[in-house]
Amino acid sequence: MKLIRWGNPGQEKTGVIINDIKYDTSTFGEDYNESFFENDGLDRLEKFVADNEGKLPTVADSERLGSPFARPSKILCIGLNFADHAKESGATPPAEPVLFMKSTTALVGPNDDVIIPRDSVKTDWEVELAVVIGKKTSYVEQSQALDYVAGYVLHNDVSEREFQLERGGTWDKGKGCDTFAPMGPFMATPDELGDINNLKLWLKVNGQIMQDGNTSNFIFDVPTVVAYVSRFMTLLPGDVISTGTPAGVGLGFKPQIYLKDGDVMELGIDGLGESKQVVKAYAKN
Amino acid sequence: MKLIRWGNPGQEKTGVIINDIKYDTSTFGEDYNESFFENDGLDRLEKFVADNEGKLPTVADSERLGSPFARPSKILCIGLNFADHAKESGATPPAEPVLFMKSTTALVGPNDDVIIPRDSVKTDWEVELAVVIGKKTSYVEQSQALDYVAGYVLHNDVSEREFQLERGGTWDKGKGCDTFAPMGPFMATPDELGDINNLKLWLKVNGQIMQDGNTSNFIFDVPTVVAYVSRFMTLLPGDVISTGTPAGVGLGFKPQIYLKDGDVMELGIDGLGESKQVVKAYAKN
Repeated sequence: MKLIRWGNPGQEKTGVIINDIKYDTSTFGEDYNESFFENDGLDRLEKFVADNEGKLPTVADSERLGSPFARPSKILCIGLNFADHAKESGATPPAEPVLFMKSTTALVGPNDDVIIPRDSVKTDWEVELAVVIGKKTSYVEQSQALDYVAGYVLHNDVSEREFQLERGGTWDKGKGCDTFAPMGPFMATPDELGDINNLKLWLKVNGQIMQDGNTSNFIFDVPTVVAYVSRFMTLLPGDVISTGTPAGVGLGFKPQIYLKDGDVMELGIDGLGESKQVVKAYAKN
Repeated sequence: MKLIRWGNPGQEKTGVIINDIKYDTSTFGEDYNESFFENDGLDRLEKFVADNEGKLPTVADSERLGSPFARPSKILCIGLNFADHAKESGATPPAEPVLFMKSTTALVGPNDDVIIPRDSVKTDWEVELAVVIGKKTSYVEQSQALDYVAGYVLHNDVSEREFQLERGGTWDKGKGCDTFAPMGPFMATPDELGDINNLKLWLKVNGQIMQDGNTSNFIFDVPTVVAYVSRFMTLLPGDVISTGTPAGVGLGFKPQIYLKDGDVMELGIDGLGESKQVVKAYAKN
Protein backbone atom coordinates (compact mmCIF):
# COMPACT_ATOMS: atom_id res chain seq x y z
CA MET A 1 0.00 0.00 0.00
CA LYS A 2 0.89 3.64 -0.40
CA LEU A 3 -0.44 5.83 2.39
CA ILE A 4 -1.02 9.58 2.14
CA ARG A 5 -2.44 12.32 4.30
CA TRP A 6 -3.96 15.35 2.60
CA GLY A 7 -5.71 18.62 3.34
CA ASN A 8 -4.86 21.69 5.37
CA PRO A 9 -1.94 21.60 7.83
CA GLY A 10 -3.06 20.15 11.15
CA GLN A 11 -6.34 18.95 9.65
CA GLU A 12 -5.07 16.26 7.32
CA LYS A 13 -7.34 13.43 6.24
CA THR A 14 -6.06 10.00 5.31
CA GLY A 15 -5.85 8.36 1.92
CA VAL A 16 -4.16 5.73 -0.22
CA ILE A 17 -2.71 5.72 -3.69
CA ILE A 18 -3.73 2.87 -6.01
CA ASN A 19 -2.52 2.82 -9.61
CA ASP A 20 -1.43 6.44 -9.28
CA ILE A 21 -4.91 7.56 -8.21
CA LYS A 22 -5.39 9.07 -4.75
CA TYR A 23 -8.37 7.82 -2.74
CA ASP A 24 -9.87 9.31 0.42
CA THR A 25 -9.92 6.80 3.29
CA SER A 26 -11.13 9.20 5.95
CA THR A 27 -14.20 7.01 6.56
CA PHE A 28 -11.74 4.43 7.92
CA GLY A 29 -11.90 6.70 10.95
CA GLU A 30 -8.32 6.63 12.16
CA ASP A 31 -5.32 8.82 11.57
CA TYR A 32 -2.05 7.09 10.60
CA ASN A 33 -0.52 7.47 14.04
CA GLU A 34 1.07 5.41 16.81
CA SER A 35 -2.22 3.78 17.75
CA PHE A 36 -2.93 2.91 14.09
CA PHE A 37 0.40 1.15 13.58
CA GLU A 38 0.24 -0.48 17.02
CA ASN A 39 -3.17 -2.02 16.42
CA ASP A 40 -2.53 -3.68 13.07
CA GLY A 41 -3.81 -0.63 11.26
CA LEU A 42 -2.04 -1.52 8.01
CA ASP A 43 -3.79 -4.89 7.81
CA ARG A 44 -7.14 -3.40 8.74
CA LEU A 45 -6.70 -0.55 6.26
CA GLU A 46 -5.88 -3.01 3.48
CA LYS A 47 -9.07 -4.93 4.21
CA PHE A 48 -11.06 -1.67 4.40
CA VAL A 49 -9.74 -0.59 1.01
CA ALA A 50 -10.55 -3.98 -0.52
CA ASP A 51 -14.04 -3.98 1.01
CA ASN A 52 -14.69 -0.51 -0.38
CA GLU A 53 -13.26 -1.02 -3.85
CA GLY A 54 -14.94 1.33 -6.29
CA LYS A 55 -16.64 3.25 -3.50
CA LEU A 56 -13.87 5.46 -2.13
CA PRO A 57 -13.92 9.09 -3.26
CA THR A 58 -10.85 10.30 -5.12
CA VAL A 59 -8.65 13.10 -3.87
CA ALA A 60 -8.08 15.98 -6.28
CA ASP A 61 -4.49 16.53 -7.40
CA SER A 62 -4.87 20.13 -6.27
CA GLU A 63 -5.12 19.06 -2.64
CA ARG A 64 -2.07 19.71 -0.47
CA LEU A 65 -0.28 16.60 0.79
CA GLY A 66 0.76 16.45 4.42
CA SER A 67 3.27 14.10 5.97
CA PRO A 68 1.95 10.58 5.23
CA PHE A 69 1.79 9.81 8.96
CA ALA A 70 0.86 11.82 12.03
CA ARG A 71 3.53 13.27 14.32
CA PRO A 72 5.59 10.36 15.67
CA SER A 73 7.05 10.09 19.17
CA LYS A 74 10.48 10.62 17.65
CA ILE A 75 12.44 11.17 14.46
CA LEU A 76 15.88 9.60 14.71
CA CYS A 77 18.55 10.12 12.10
CA ILE A 78 21.75 8.36 11.14
CA GLY A 79 24.62 10.66 10.24
CA LEU A 80 27.46 10.07 7.81
CA ASN A 81 26.05 6.76 6.52
CA PHE A 82 27.52 7.14 3.03
CA ALA A 83 31.31 7.14 2.74
CA ASP A 84 31.26 9.82 0.03
CA HIS A 85 29.17 12.15 2.22
CA ALA A 86 31.39 11.54 5.27
CA LYS A 87 34.38 12.52 3.13
CA GLU A 88 32.79 15.72 1.78
CA SER A 89 31.84 16.67 5.36
CA GLY A 90 35.47 16.35 6.44
CA ALA A 91 34.66 13.34 8.63
CA THR A 92 36.05 9.82 8.59
CA PRO A 93 33.49 7.06 7.96
CA PRO A 94 32.13 6.12 11.39
CA ALA A 95 32.96 2.80 13.08
CA GLU A 96 29.36 2.51 14.27
CA PRO A 97 26.24 4.45 13.29
CA VAL A 98 26.12 8.13 14.24
CA LEU A 99 22.78 8.89 15.86
CA PHE A 100 20.98 12.18 16.39
CA MET A 101 17.42 13.36 16.85
CA LYS A 102 15.23 15.72 14.89
CA SER A 103 12.48 17.64 16.66
CA THR A 104 9.08 16.33 15.52
CA THR A 105 7.88 19.94 15.19
CA ALA A 106 10.03 20.03 12.04
CA LEU A 107 7.66 17.64 10.25
CA VAL A 108 5.85 19.06 7.19
CA GLY A 109 4.28 17.86 3.98
CA PRO A 110 6.40 16.84 0.98
CA ASN A 111 5.71 19.97 -1.03
CA ASP A 112 5.43 22.53 1.75
CA ASP A 113 7.75 25.51 1.86
CA VAL A 114 11.03 25.14 3.73
CA ILE A 115 11.64 28.21 5.89
CA ILE A 116 15.21 29.41 6.40
CA PRO A 117 15.36 30.10 10.16
CA ARG A 118 16.03 33.58 11.46
CA ASP A 119 19.78 34.28 11.59
CA SER A 120 20.53 31.26 9.40
CA VAL A 121 23.35 31.51 6.87
CA LYS A 122 23.93 27.82 6.11
CA THR A 123 20.65 26.02 5.40
CA ASP A 124 21.37 22.85 3.43
CA TRP A 125 19.61 19.84 1.88
CA GLU A 126 19.87 16.06 2.40
CA VAL A 127 17.80 13.50 0.49
CA GLU A 128 17.25 10.44 2.68
CA LEU A 129 15.41 7.14 2.86
CA ALA A 130 13.42 7.12 6.09
CA VAL A 131 12.11 3.99 7.78
CA VAL A 132 8.78 3.95 9.64
CA ILE A 133 8.59 1.57 12.59
CA GLY A 134 5.51 -0.66 12.73
CA LYS A 135 5.79 -2.42 16.07
CA LYS A 136 7.25 -1.52 19.45
CA THR A 137 10.71 -2.98 19.89
CA SER A 138 13.96 -2.71 21.78
CA TYR A 139 17.16 -4.74 21.49
CA VAL A 140 15.86 -6.26 18.25
CA GLU A 141 18.27 -8.60 16.47
CA GLN A 142 19.48 -7.50 13.05
CA SER A 143 18.01 -10.66 11.51
CA GLN A 144 14.56 -9.74 12.85
CA ALA A 145 14.74 -5.97 12.36
CA LEU A 146 12.79 -5.77 9.09
CA ASP A 147 9.81 -7.42 10.81
CA TYR A 148 9.43 -4.18 12.77
CA VAL A 149 9.34 -1.91 9.72
CA ALA A 150 5.94 -0.60 8.58
CA GLY A 151 7.23 1.16 5.52
CA TYR A 152 9.49 3.70 3.88
CA VAL A 153 9.25 7.36 2.98
CA LEU A 154 11.20 10.03 1.13
CA HIS A 155 12.68 12.60 3.53
CA ASN A 156 14.60 15.83 3.05
CA ASP A 157 16.71 16.07 6.22
CA VAL A 158 17.10 19.83 5.95
CA SER A 159 20.03 21.01 8.08
CA GLU A 160 21.46 24.33 9.23
CA ARG A 161 25.23 23.75 9.23
CA GLU A 162 26.22 26.69 11.40
CA PHE A 163 23.63 25.73 14.04
CA GLN A 164 24.66 22.07 13.72
CA LEU A 165 28.42 22.38 13.76
CA GLU A 166 29.55 25.79 14.97
CA ARG A 167 27.26 26.72 17.84
CA GLY A 168 28.45 24.27 20.49
CA GLY A 169 26.73 21.17 21.70
CA THR A 170 25.18 18.52 19.56
CA TRP A 171 23.86 18.45 16.03
CA ASP A 172 20.23 18.69 17.18
CA LYS A 173 20.32 22.51 17.13
CA GLY A 174 20.67 22.54 13.35
CA LYS A 175 18.37 19.65 12.52
CA GLY A 176 15.02 20.35 14.16
CA CYS A 177 14.07 23.81 12.93
CA ASP A 178 10.46 24.19 11.83
CA THR A 179 9.84 22.83 8.29
CA PHE A 180 13.18 20.95 8.32
CA ALA A 181 11.56 17.53 7.81
CA PRO A 182 9.46 17.36 4.62
CA MET A 183 8.25 13.74 4.42
CA GLY A 184 6.39 12.08 1.58
CA PRO A 185 4.61 12.16 -0.86
CA PHE A 186 3.56 8.75 0.52
CA MET A 187 4.63 5.98 2.88
CA ALA A 188 5.11 2.74 0.96
CA THR A 189 4.79 -0.62 2.68
CA PRO A 190 7.83 -2.88 2.06
CA ASP A 191 6.02 -4.99 -0.57
CA GLU A 192 5.78 -1.90 -2.80
CA LEU A 193 9.55 -1.61 -3.04
CA GLY A 194 12.31 -3.73 -4.47
CA ASP A 195 15.56 -4.19 -2.63
CA ILE A 196 15.71 -1.33 -0.11
CA ASN A 197 19.49 -1.57 -0.20
CA ASN A 198 19.52 -0.79 -3.91
CA LEU A 199 17.45 2.35 -4.41
CA LYS A 200 18.59 5.38 -6.35
CA LEU A 201 18.13 8.66 -4.46
CA TRP A 202 18.67 12.11 -5.87
CA LEU A 203 18.13 15.80 -5.18
CA LYS A 204 18.13 18.85 -7.42
CA VAL A 205 18.37 22.53 -6.51
CA ASN A 206 16.91 24.89 -9.10
CA GLY A 207 16.91 22.07 -11.61
CA GLN A 208 20.57 21.17 -11.16
CA ILE A 209 21.39 17.70 -9.86
CA MET A 210 23.28 17.95 -6.56
CA GLN A 211 22.89 14.49 -5.05
CA ASP A 212 22.82 11.29 -7.08
CA GLY A 213 23.34 8.27 -4.86
CA ASN A 214 22.18 4.75 -4.21
CA THR A 215 21.34 3.01 -0.96
CA SER A 216 23.66 0.21 -2.08
CA ASN A 217 26.41 2.51 -0.80
CA PHE A 218 25.09 2.59 2.77
CA ILE A 219 27.86 2.03 5.30
CA PHE A 220 25.20 0.54 7.60
CA ASP A 221 22.16 -0.99 5.91
CA VAL A 222 18.57 -0.72 7.11
CA PRO A 223 18.49 -3.85 9.32
CA THR A 224 21.78 -2.84 10.92
CA VAL A 225 20.53 0.66 11.62
CA VAL A 226 17.17 -0.43 13.09
CA ALA A 227 18.82 -3.03 15.33
CA TYR A 228 21.50 -0.58 16.40
CA VAL A 229 19.14 2.25 17.34
CA SER A 230 16.93 -0.16 19.32
CA ARG A 231 19.86 -0.80 21.66
CA PHE A 232 19.67 2.78 22.90
CA MET A 233 15.93 3.32 23.24
CA THR A 234 12.59 1.64 22.66
CA LEU A 235 11.19 2.26 19.20
CA LEU A 236 7.46 2.91 19.13
CA PRO A 237 5.01 2.25 16.30
CA GLY A 238 5.15 5.21 13.94
CA ASP A 239 8.66 6.28 14.95
CA VAL A 240 10.88 7.33 12.07
CA ILE A 241 14.55 6.53 11.46
CA SER A 242 16.16 8.44 8.61
CA THR A 243 19.11 6.56 7.22
CA GLY A 244 21.55 9.21 6.05
CA THR A 245 22.36 11.13 2.90
CA PRO A 246 24.78 10.55 0.01
CA ALA A 247 27.35 13.10 -1.22
CA GLY A 248 26.33 16.36 -2.83
CA VAL A 249 25.09 18.54 0.02
CA GLY A 250 25.90 22.26 0.06
CA LEU A 251 28.43 21.79 2.86
CA GLY A 252 30.53 19.63 0.58
CA PHE A 253 31.05 22.15 -2.23
CA LYS A 254 34.10 24.40 -2.45
CA PRO A 255 33.01 27.09 -1.89
CA GLN A 256 30.02 25.85 0.07
CA ILE A 257 26.55 26.50 -1.37
CA TYR A 258 23.58 27.24 0.85
CA LEU A 259 19.88 27.74 0.26
CA LYS A 260 18.39 31.17 -0.30
CA ASP A 261 14.92 32.61 -0.63
CA GLY A 262 13.23 31.36 -3.78
CA ASP A 263 15.39 28.29 -4.32
CA VAL A 264 13.55 25.13 -5.33
CA MET A 265 14.52 21.68 -4.09
CA GLU A 266 13.29 18.57 -5.89
CA LEU A 267 14.13 15.10 -4.66
CA GLY A 268 13.17 11.49 -5.15
CA ILE A 269 13.89 7.86 -4.35
CA ASP A 270 13.11 4.85 -6.57
CA GLY A 271 9.60 3.67 -5.68
CA LEU A 272 8.97 6.43 -3.14
CA GLY A 273 7.98 9.23 -5.47
CA GLU A 274 9.20 12.79 -5.60
CA SER A 275 8.78 15.93 -3.54
CA LYS A 276 9.44 19.61 -4.18
CA GLN A 277 9.99 22.41 -1.70
CA VAL A 278 10.29 26.12 -2.30
CA VAL A 279 12.70 27.84 0.08
CA LYS A 280 11.46 30.94 1.87
CA ALA A 281 13.36 33.43 3.98
CA TYR A 282 12.18 33.76 7.57
CA ALA A 283 9.58 36.48 7.96
CA LYS A 284 8.22 37.58 11.32
CA ASN A 285 4.52 36.74 11.53
CA MET B 1 -0.95 24.06 42.02
CA LYS B 2 0.97 20.86 42.27
CA LEU B 3 -0.01 18.32 39.62
CA ILE B 4 0.52 14.58 39.87
CA ARG B 5 -0.31 11.49 37.84
CA TRP B 6 -0.70 8.21 39.65
CA GLY B 7 -1.55 4.54 39.05
CA ASN B 8 -0.07 1.82 36.90
CA PRO B 9 2.38 2.68 34.10
CA GLY B 10 0.52 3.70 30.96
CA GLN B 11 -2.78 3.94 32.87
CA GLU B 12 -2.06 6.93 35.08
CA LYS B 13 -4.89 9.03 36.47
CA THR B 14 -4.53 12.70 37.31
CA GLY B 15 -4.40 14.38 40.68
CA VAL B 16 -3.28 17.42 42.62
CA ILE B 17 -1.48 17.90 45.92
CA ILE B 18 -2.98 20.38 48.38
CA ASN B 19 -1.41 20.85 51.80
CA ASP B 20 0.61 17.67 51.30
CA ILE B 21 -2.51 15.58 50.64
CA LYS B 22 -2.96 13.95 47.22
CA TYR B 23 -6.38 14.25 45.60
CA ASP B 24 -7.76 12.35 42.63
CA THR B 25 -8.86 14.70 39.82
CA SER B 26 -9.65 12.00 37.28
CA THR B 27 -13.27 13.23 37.08
CA PHE B 28 -11.82 16.37 35.47
CA GLY B 29 -11.69 14.10 32.44
CA GLU B 30 -8.43 15.16 30.82
CA ASP B 31 -4.88 13.93 31.02
CA TYR B 32 -2.16 16.52 31.62
CA ASN B 33 -1.00 16.54 28.02
CA GLU B 34 -0.39 18.93 25.12
CA SER B 35 -4.10 19.54 24.62
CA PHE B 36 -4.59 20.23 28.34
CA PHE B 37 -1.85 22.88 28.48
CA GLU B 38 -2.88 24.32 25.11
CA ASN B 39 -6.49 24.84 26.14
CA ASP B 40 -5.96 26.68 29.42
CA GLY B 41 -6.08 23.40 31.32
CA LEU B 42 -4.28 24.82 34.34
CA ASP B 43 -6.87 27.58 34.82
CA ARG B 44 -9.75 25.17 34.25
CA LEU B 45 -8.25 22.60 36.62
CA GLU B 46 -7.81 25.23 39.32
CA LYS B 47 -11.49 26.16 39.00
CA PHE B 48 -12.49 22.47 39.00
CA VAL B 49 -10.52 21.87 42.18
CA ALA B 50 -12.07 24.92 43.87
CA ASP B 51 -15.56 23.90 42.75
CA ASN B 52 -15.03 20.41 44.16
CA GLU B 53 -13.40 21.38 47.43
CA GLY B 54 -14.05 18.69 50.03
CA LYS B 55 -15.45 16.32 47.42
CA LEU B 56 -12.35 14.96 45.68
CA PRO B 57 -11.25 11.47 46.78
CA THR B 58 -7.77 11.22 48.25
CA VAL B 59 -5.02 9.13 46.67
CA ALA B 60 -3.38 6.57 48.95
CA ASP B 61 0.33 7.09 49.63
CA SER B 62 0.86 3.50 48.50
CA GLU B 63 -0.11 4.41 44.94
CA ARG B 64 2.70 4.61 42.40
CA LEU B 65 3.38 8.07 40.99
CA GLY B 66 3.90 8.46 37.25
CA SER B 67 5.45 11.39 35.46
CA PRO B 68 3.27 14.40 36.42
CA PHE B 69 2.47 15.03 32.76
CA ALA B 70 1.80 12.79 29.76
CA ARG B 71 4.47 12.12 27.16
CA PRO B 72 5.45 15.47 25.63
CA SER B 73 6.35 16.08 21.99
CA LYS B 74 9.95 16.59 23.07
CA ILE B 75 12.34 16.66 26.01
CA LEU B 76 15.14 19.13 25.38
CA CYS B 77 18.14 19.42 27.64
CA ILE B 78 20.81 22.04 28.26
CA GLY B 79 24.30 20.65 28.78
CA LEU B 80 27.12 22.07 30.88
CA ASN B 81 25.01 24.86 32.38
CA PHE B 82 26.91 24.97 35.67
CA ALA B 83 30.57 26.05 35.52
CA ASP B 84 31.58 23.50 38.18
CA HIS B 85 29.99 20.65 36.20
CA ALA B 86 31.58 21.81 32.94
CA LYS B 87 34.95 21.75 34.70
CA GLU B 88 34.52 18.25 36.16
CA SER B 89 33.46 17.02 32.69
CA GLY B 90 36.68 18.35 31.22
CA ALA B 91 34.81 20.96 29.18
CA THR B 92 35.13 24.72 29.11
CA PRO B 93 31.99 26.65 30.07
CA PRO B 94 30.02 27.12 26.85
CA ALA B 95 29.69 30.48 25.12
CA GLU B 96 26.03 29.74 24.35
CA PRO B 97 23.71 27.01 25.66
CA VAL B 98 24.54 23.43 24.67
CA LEU B 99 21.38 21.74 23.45
CA PHE B 100 20.53 18.07 23.07
CA MET B 101 17.41 15.91 23.00
CA LYS B 102 16.25 13.07 25.17
CA SER B 103 13.95 10.43 23.71
CA THR B 104 10.50 10.73 25.26
CA THR B 105 10.40 6.94 25.66
CA ALA B 106 12.85 7.52 28.53
CA LEU B 107 10.14 9.17 30.63
CA VAL B 108 9.16 7.34 33.87
CA GLY B 109 7.69 8.11 37.26
CA PRO B 110 9.77 9.73 39.99
CA ASN B 111 10.26 6.57 42.03
CA ASP B 112 10.38 3.98 39.25
CA ASP B 113 13.43 1.78 38.83
CA VAL B 114 16.23 3.03 36.58
CA ILE B 115 17.41 0.21 34.33
CA ILE B 116 21.09 0.07 33.37
CA PRO B 117 21.00 -0.60 29.60
CA ARG B 118 22.46 -3.78 28.18
CA ASP B 119 26.22 -3.38 27.58
CA SER B 120 26.34 -0.25 29.72
CA VAL B 121 29.37 0.34 31.90
CA LYS B 122 28.98 4.06 32.65
CA THR B 123 25.43 4.88 33.77
CA ASP B 124 25.45 8.16 35.70
CA TRP B 125 23.09 10.57 37.52
CA GLU B 126 22.23 14.26 37.04
CA VAL B 127 19.77 16.17 39.22
CA GLU B 128 18.11 18.93 37.17
CA LEU B 129 15.40 21.55 37.25
CA ALA B 130 13.11 20.96 34.27
CA VAL B 131 10.79 23.56 32.81
CA VAL B 132 7.38 22.62 31.36
CA ILE B 133 6.18 24.82 28.48
CA GLY B 134 2.60 26.06 28.76
CA LYS B 135 1.99 27.77 25.43
CA LYS B 136 3.23 27.27 21.89
CA THR B 137 6.06 29.64 21.07
CA SER B 138 9.01 30.27 18.79
CA TYR B 139 11.50 33.13 18.75
CA VAL B 140 10.22 34.28 22.14
CA GLU B 141 12.06 37.23 23.67
CA GLN B 142 13.93 36.58 26.89
CA SER B 143 11.82 39.21 28.66
CA GLN B 144 8.64 37.32 27.71
CA ALA B 145 9.94 33.77 28.11
CA LEU B 146 8.52 33.09 31.59
CA ASP B 147 5.01 33.80 30.27
CA TYR B 148 5.34 30.55 28.31
CA VAL B 149 6.24 28.40 31.31
CA ALA B 150 3.51 26.21 32.83
CA GLY B 151 5.61 24.94 35.69
CA TYR B 152 8.67 23.16 36.98
CA VAL B 153 9.58 19.59 37.84
CA LEU B 154 12.42 17.62 39.41
CA HIS B 155 14.27 15.53 36.82
CA ASN B 156 17.07 12.98 37.01
CA ASP B 157 18.78 13.30 33.61
CA VAL B 158 20.25 9.79 33.76
CA SER B 159 23.12 9.46 31.27
CA GLU B 160 25.28 6.67 29.91
CA ARG B 161 28.68 8.28 29.50
CA GLU B 162 30.21 5.73 27.16
CA PHE B 163 27.16 5.86 24.86
CA GLN B 164 27.16 9.67 25.12
CA LEU B 165 30.84 10.44 24.64
CA GLU B 166 32.74 7.46 23.23
CA ARG B 167 30.46 5.87 20.63
CA GLY B 168 30.59 8.51 17.91
CA GLY B 169 27.92 10.98 16.99
CA THR B 170 25.96 13.14 19.33
CA TRP B 171 25.10 12.87 23.01
CA ASP B 172 21.58 11.59 22.28
CA LYS B 173 22.74 7.97 22.24
CA GLY B 174 23.53 8.09 25.94
CA LYS B 175 20.62 10.23 27.08
CA GLY B 176 17.43 8.60 25.86
CA CYS B 177 17.66 5.01 27.11
CA ASP B 178 14.45 3.65 28.62
CA THR B 179 13.88 4.85 32.24
CA PHE B 180 16.54 7.58 31.86
CA ALA B 181 14.08 10.42 32.60
CA PRO B 182 12.41 10.06 36.01
CA MET B 183 10.27 13.18 36.42
CA GLY B 184 8.36 14.30 39.49
CA PRO B 185 6.97 13.75 42.13
CA PHE B 186 4.85 16.70 40.94
CA MET B 187 4.79 19.61 38.52
CA ALA B 188 4.56 22.90 40.42
CA THR B 189 3.12 25.99 38.81
CA PRO B 190 5.45 29.02 39.10
CA ASP B 191 3.45 30.58 41.96
CA GLU B 192 4.34 27.59 44.16
CA LEU B 193 8.05 28.38 43.94
CA GLY B 194 10.24 31.23 45.10
CA ASP B 195 13.02 32.54 42.89
CA ILE B 196 13.66 29.81 40.33
CA ASN B 197 17.18 31.10 39.96
CA ASN B 198 17.90 30.42 43.64
CA LEU B 199 16.84 26.84 44.31
CA LYS B 200 19.02 24.29 46.04
CA LEU B 201 19.28 20.98 44.17
CA TRP B 202 20.94 17.84 45.47
CA LEU B 203 21.38 14.14 44.77
CA LYS B 204 22.52 11.25 46.95
CA VAL B 205 23.66 7.77 45.94
CA ASN B 206 23.24 5.14 48.64
CA GLY B 207 22.75 7.88 51.21
CA GLN B 208 25.92 9.76 50.32
CA ILE B 209 25.57 13.30 49.01
CA MET B 210 27.05 13.55 45.50
CA GLN B 211 25.53 16.74 44.09
CA ASP B 212 24.80 19.82 46.18
CA GLY B 213 24.19 22.81 43.96
CA ASN B 214 22.02 25.87 43.53
CA THR B 215 20.33 27.25 40.42
CA SER B 216 21.88 30.63 41.31
CA ASN B 217 25.00 29.16 39.68
CA PHE B 218 23.35 28.64 36.29
CA ILE B 219 25.52 29.92 33.45
CA PHE B 220 22.29 30.57 31.50
CA ASP B 221 19.17 31.22 33.58
CA VAL B 222 15.68 29.92 32.79
CA PRO B 223 14.46 32.85 30.66
CA THR B 224 17.70 32.80 28.67
CA VAL B 225 17.40 29.06 28.06
CA VAL B 226 13.73 29.14 27.01
CA ALA B 227 14.29 32.06 24.64
CA TYR B 228 17.42 30.44 23.21
CA VAL B 229 15.85 27.06 22.51
CA SER B 230 12.85 28.71 20.85
CA ARG B 231 15.19 30.11 18.19
CA PHE B 232 15.86 26.60 16.92
CA MET B 233 12.40 25.02 17.00
CA THR B 234 8.83 25.69 18.01
CA LEU B 235 8.08 24.76 21.60
CA LEU B 236 4.72 23.09 22.09
CA PRO B 237 2.52 23.08 25.20
CA GLY B 238 3.77 20.33 27.50
CA ASP B 239 7.30 20.28 26.05
CA VAL B 240 10.06 19.93 28.63
CA ILE B 241 13.40 21.76 28.82
CA SER B 242 15.79 20.43 31.43
CA THR B 243 18.25 23.09 32.49
CA GLY B 244 21.46 21.25 33.33
CA THR B 245 23.15 19.70 36.34
CA PRO B 246 25.64 20.97 38.93
CA ALA B 247 28.94 19.27 39.80
CA GLY B 248 29.08 15.88 41.47
CA VAL B 249 28.19 13.40 38.74
CA GLY B 250 30.00 10.05 38.55
CA LEU B 251 31.94 11.16 35.46
CA GLY B 252 33.59 13.89 37.54
CA PHE B 253 35.15 11.64 40.21
CA LYS B 254 38.72 10.34 40.02
CA PRO B 255 38.37 7.44 39.56
CA GLN B 256 34.93 7.77 37.99
CA ILE B 257 31.99 6.19 39.82
CA TYR B 258 29.09 4.62 37.95
CA LEU B 259 25.78 3.08 38.95
CA LYS B 260 25.41 -0.63 39.60
CA ASP B 261 22.54 -2.97 40.32
CA GLY B 262 20.95 -2.19 43.68
CA ASP B 263 22.21 1.38 44.02
CA VAL B 264 19.68 3.90 45.30
CA MET B 265 19.47 7.46 44.00
CA GLU B 266 17.62 10.12 45.99
CA LEU B 267 17.30 13.67 44.74
CA GLY B 268 15.43 16.88 45.39
CA ILE B 269 15.00 20.55 44.58
CA ASP B 270 13.67 23.25 46.92
CA GLY B 271 9.90 23.39 46.48
CA LEU B 272 9.77 20.52 43.99
CA GLY B 273 9.91 17.58 46.38
CA GLU B 274 12.09 14.52 46.29
CA SER B 275 12.32 11.35 44.22
CA LYS B 276 14.05 8.02 44.74
CA GLN B 277 15.08 5.44 42.14
CA VAL B 278 16.49 1.97 42.65
CA VAL B 279 19.00 0.97 39.96
CA LYS B 280 18.49 -2.38 38.28
CA ALA B 281 20.75 -4.26 35.92
CA TYR B 282 19.29 -4.97 32.47
CA ALA B 283 17.53 -8.32 32.36
CA LYS B 284 16.15 -9.81 29.17
CA ASN B 285 12.36 -10.05 29.44
